[in-house]
Amino acid sequence: MAAAHPYTVYRGTFVHLPLLNDTSAKAEIVRNQGVLGYDWQVNDDASFQSFLSSQGWTTSDVTVVESNDDRNEFFFPGFIDTHIHAPQYPNEGLFGSSGLLDWLNEYTFPVEASFGSKSDPENKDSDPKDTPPEGVRVYNEVVQKTLAHGTTCASYFATIHVPATNALAALCHKHGQRAFIGRVCMDNKEQCPSYYVDQDAEQGFNATIRTIDYIHTLDPNGTLINPIVTPRFAPSCSNESLDGLGKLAASYEPPLWIQTHIAETTDEVDLVQQLFPESTSYADVYDKANLLTNRTILAHGVHLTKDEMSLIRERGSKVAHCPASNSGLGSGLAPIRYMLDQGVTVGLGTDVAGGYSPSILEVARQASLVSRLIQFSAEYQQLTGNTTFDGSEKLLYQDVLYLATRGGAAVVDMAEDIGGFDKGMIWDAQLIELGAVQNSTTGQLDVATLAGRAVETGPVGNVDLFGNETWQEQIQKWMWNGDDRNVKSVWVQGKLVHTRDE
Amino acid sequence: MAAAHPYTVYRGTFVHLPLLNDTSAKAEIVRNQGVLGYDWQVNDDASFQSFLSSQGWTTSDVTVVESNDDRNEFFFPGFIDTHIHAPQYPNEGLFGSSGLLDWLNEYTFPVEASFGSKSDPENKDSDPKDTPPEGVRVYNEVVQKTLAHGTTCASYFATIHVPATNALAALCHKHGQRAFIGRVCMDNKEQCPSYYVDQDAEQGFNATIRTIDYIHTLDPNGTLINPIVTPRFAPSCSNESLDGLGKLAASYEPPLWIQTHIAETTDEVDLVQQLFPESTSYADVYDKANLLTNRTILAHGVHLTKDEMSLIRERGSKVAHCPASNSGLGSGLAPIRYMLDQGVTVGLGTDVAGGYSPSILEVARQASLVSRLIQFSAEYQQLTGNTTFDGSEKLLYQDVLYLATRGGAAVVDMAEDIGGFDKGMIWDAQLIELGAVQNSTTGQLDVATLAGRAVETGPVGNVDLFGNETWQEQIQKWMWNGDDRNVKSVWVQGKLVHTRDE
Repeated sequence: MAAAHPYTVYRGTFVHLPLLNDTSAKAEIVRNQGVLGYDWQVNDDASFQSFLSSQGWTTSDVTVVESNDDRNEFFFPGFIDTHIHAPQYPNEGLFGSSGLLDWLNEYTFPVEASFGSKSDPENKDSDPKDTPPEGVRVYNEVVQKTLAHGTTCASYFATIHVPATNALAALCHKHGQRAFIGRVCMDNKEQCPSYYVDQDAEQGFNATIRTIDYIHTLDPNGTLINPIVTPRFAPSCSNESLDGLGKLAASYEPPLWIQTHIAETTDEVDLVQQLFPESTSYADVYDKANLLTNRTILAHGVHLTKDEMSLIRERGSKVAHCPASNSGLGSGLAPIRYMLDQGVTVGLGTDVAGGYSPSILEVARQASLVSRLIQFSAEYQQLTGNTTFDGSEKLLYQDVLYLATRGGAAVVDMAEDIGGFDKGMIWDAQLIELGAVQNSTTGQLDVATLAGRAVETGPVGNVDLFGNETWQEQIQKWMWNGDDRNVKSVWVQGKLVHTRDE
Repeated sequence: MAAAHPYTVYRGTFVHLPLLNDTSAKAEIVRNQGVLGYDWQVNDDASFQSFLSSQGWTTSDVTVVESNDDRNEFFFPGFIDTHIHAPQYPNEGLFGSSGLLDWLNEYTFPVEASFGSKSDPENKDSDPKDTPPEGVRVYNEVVQKTLAHGTTCASYFATIHVPATNALAALCHKHGQRAFIGRVCMDNKEQCPSYYVDQDAEQGFNATIRTIDYIHTLDPNGTLINPIVTPRFAPSCSNESLDGLGKLAASYEPPLWIQTHIAETTDEVDLVQQLFPESTSYADVYDKANLLTNRTILAHGVHLTKDEMSLIRERGSKVAHCPASNSGLGSGLAPIRYMLDQGVTVGLGTDVAGGYSPSILEVARQASLVSRLIQFSAEYQQLTGNTTFDGSEKLLYQDVLYLATRGGAAVVDMAEDIGGFDKGMIWDAQLIELGAVQNSTTGQLDVATLAGRAVETGPVGNVDLFGNETWQEQIQKWMWNGDDRNVKSVWVQGKLVHTRDE
């Protein structure tokens, strides 16, 4: 698109969440009309022409992309999925009655193992073409699906396999999705299945370095794709592996991103205590290995203690909140408002396929629902020392949309570049279409006639506007009932990467 | 349709939930191929011809409606929404941070009040044409929307207004949705807003009788539409009103259906205790007024005591479980498996607009999620006397689909007629289309080529099949990610009432 024009100007209605100030964890939502990041006063044709002139541009210099007010369209920052397991996508919605540890063995490890190369069983090759066809198919699908749901940036867990991990990086690069790509490290033979485990810490490091090298060659400036050091979680790694991965991340300049899991279930917390008796807490296991950096994403954190939250805040590490997964697997209710109040940075993650949906909007809904139920949690009552609550623990629509955009941007250490529409930010965005308001009745009240009228084609998907909503109420209706049908276009790094089928 | 043919035969793949036997509250799911309710052995063309001959039919006597296996289509019983407030539909997704009692005053009563007739402010007329245009528009929309989501039967709360209540009945009748229609009774001036309240119990009875008469004239045999006596909930009614409504329901032969709310929030339970000091429990308030019958639907029941569950079971009354609402309003986590184990009959309700969605499939998901979190509830730990659980408290996909169909049928006292595909049942059904399996890759592993391939048009909506799923796994994927896009056709009482836009 726009090959003939050197510039693209996005004009119309923009909705985003301003950065939180330091003293409050309450988000607000803002709507502007004008030209992106430039001049919110450019809100009619005359001022738009003046704007072009002031830039020294004529109409032929620019492609103008406009939101359509009649269709209740608006630009919104792209969603950021801070925790997603790409290879597990075919298992979406399949978790039976399992809890985490059963589910890993029953559903997860078998599908992940299938990403290995048959021609290279020792996993020594790096060529993405050695990925099994089914693996490429899955990765191709998950990237396109998440883009279609408005996810412009994702932090992916791949598998232990170098070719398939590199294939995921290449597919994200080709499809134009901003991504962090992690080869999964897991070398603890006691805790991992014999058919799916690194030979030892050393082999894990070498394999990880081959994926880092591949990604650094693919995208030398890290414009779109970056490697992320990925110890699966403490129980699946030896101390040697944890220590080495901490050193590996620190050996790069700037240091590499790191991602892992923490305190997802109480059984897992107990297991970590048993496996790492020398550590004072789950977070301390990672801290001892220098894995708690200001570029570390810790998935879940459902059962963190207050002391662990303090440690995480001090280290500047971040939490990926995955409520769809935590509810689906019965892992627990994460105390997100409390965590924010403790100064911890939080974003949202789908955790496909512990999470049943690739949609961050669905995760935002679940984050709000869980926050409305957490007052009933015995563990939360214990954490806070209260048994009655005033509602301030709830995450409202603006809070969860904040977590889905600004929060996620901070979690992947890109708060200055993505997640909002501030001047100078990168254009990672989605055009949301809520659809037209239902036609009002024409004064014809004959029930028989009205009943024969088909549903108006006005609304898009399940967001149903009656015309008397404030714009904030329109956003609430989108938050609660929106889906991929409302995602009309998606851009990453200024490039159009998805257009909805019409 | 099928005007030329006296019979319609549904042929193909049928999925339903058999009735629970008495000793178990665990549902199973069954898939049959053949001809509905007749002969599951009629599964090829030759046996189908034999079947026709055995009936004395030729091909020209029958319209055949078939499910398409290539598109992973199957017939499924229509969903039953046992609790929905039709006038609140425009407020879907709008509940801010409110709990129940605030929300009623802030969002609910104002919208319900708008259904009154300006030309008949005393609400003495019965003609549906006296409904305000906006009210007709809302009711028209809610009936079509719920049908589009596969709801073939709904138990509606309307408002206090006779014309609008009658309009809702007429619209359901015209659109062909099976419905129970309740004029809301609320005469406690201390608890109801001055602008939206019955003048007194007597006026409430008379208005209710006018809606009952209208519905009995509209549908004399109650084939599709039936009246349901609807005291809003104990706090909004005087003792005189509660007693009188119990007598009113019993005065018909057979007795009328009854619906109300119970134990939705702890604040409400406290309020009832304060307003009805002579009663031993919330359920006892209704029991004293003879409102607990075997045709009574009690919405919510989140905070019922074990004794109240016993009383409800003894009376044969039923519970409408509304988890999307209970989570959204932060009302609590209803102990559904426990309630089933106590012998209480349970179905699902959207509770629009406490619930944010008109979809029973969405409610089924929420029912499963809440059941996976309830182990963490302090109240549940107290109710059961346990602090650790073995997972048997979870509602699995087959359990929530049971509640959405068979459970709902039992709640509206139609267990023998709807909710399944047993011989002799009424054809209230939906044709679900999951879509084709993704094309497998063609051996072409060049990443650049693959990335250029668009998402296959195979899948419908967000159910993404890879081809290696068992049929039970397909159903799970539908339960977790399905939406109205998967509802291809809907029939009620053998009549096609909805076809998806293509």
